[in-house]
Amino acid sequence: MTKEELMKRAIRLSEESVKNGGGPFGAVIARDGEIISEASNSVTLDHDPTAHAEVNAIRKACSALNSFDLSGCEIYCSCEPCPMCFGAIYWARLDRIYYGNSRKDAAEIGFDDDFIYREIALDPSEREKKMEILLPHEARKAFEMWKEKSDKIEY
Amino acid sequence: MTKEELMKRAIRLSEESVKNGGGPFGAVIARDGEIISEASNSVTLDHDPTAHAEVNAIRKACSALNSFDLSGCEIYCSCEPCPMCFGAIYWARLDRIYYGNSRKDAAEIGFDDDFIYREIALDPSEREKKMEILLPHEARKAFEMWKEKSDKIEY
Repeated sequence: MTKEELMKRAIRLSEESVKNGGGPFGAVIARDGEIISEASNSVTLDHDPTAHAEVNAIRKACSALNSFDLSGCEIYCSCEPCPMCFGAIYWARLDRIYYGNSRKDAAEIGFDDDFIYREIALDPSEREKKMEILLPHEARKAFEMWKEKSDKIEY
Repeated sequence: MTKEELMKRAIRLSEESVKNGGGPFGAVIARDGEIISEASNSVTLDHDPTAHAEVNAIRKACSALNSFDLSGCEIYCSCEPCPMCFGAIYWARLDRIYYGNSRKDAAEIGFDDDFIYREIALDPSEREKKMEILLPHEARKAFEMWKEKSDKIEY
């Protein structure tokens, strides 16, 4: 499939999602033009705020490939990924991101993507969401244990 | 439980996680000092790059409360949340974030948190990860459908 065909599939999923009671977002993960996974937003259907189309598609693709590493794959998103999905795409090591609508378009229909992008760029002390450092010295030990572990699986 | 006790529990989970083959991260979600959910990182164990401690804890709490909205709850993270988890915390509407280690500490032991924070602050055209807008006019329709839908569940 061409990249336009793959994006059309992601867009079709976003439209079907609205009809089925989900949010207006779809995503497709492909490798060499072949679909590995596809998903739509299921936040309200699954009572799961992390169930964005991109996260759902990543989980499905990883399950299909039995790997947490999607190097060599690309993601087609009907909308620019929010910060959560953006992070998930990096952790999954997807090669490239294609998207249709923008974060500004999403903000216009009531989604917080643009607000979260602005918050994330601020220093923690300046954010609307209150953040507080607690017991940093105690927290350090797990990192030392990780550093010293010889048989760890890095990711 | 006090906030120090809740953070100690998150830290304990991060240490147990290293012993059990997961990443060195733990998280606890609490409401009025009572634990709603707790989790550790299971990326490599579950073959799921989104299975960070915070995301796992959010999914568990939502399942326990049968809701995608965790307003009134707080999250205790053994490390500063990465951009993915930061976004998930906003979407879950958690009231407040407590954390121990910082993104710089995580970078020192080989995790990409700080890199992703720097990437997310850039314009898409300047990022290392390639992003491309594709078929924005076609993508628009799902957003129009969402706007016009009278029985939608907003989130």
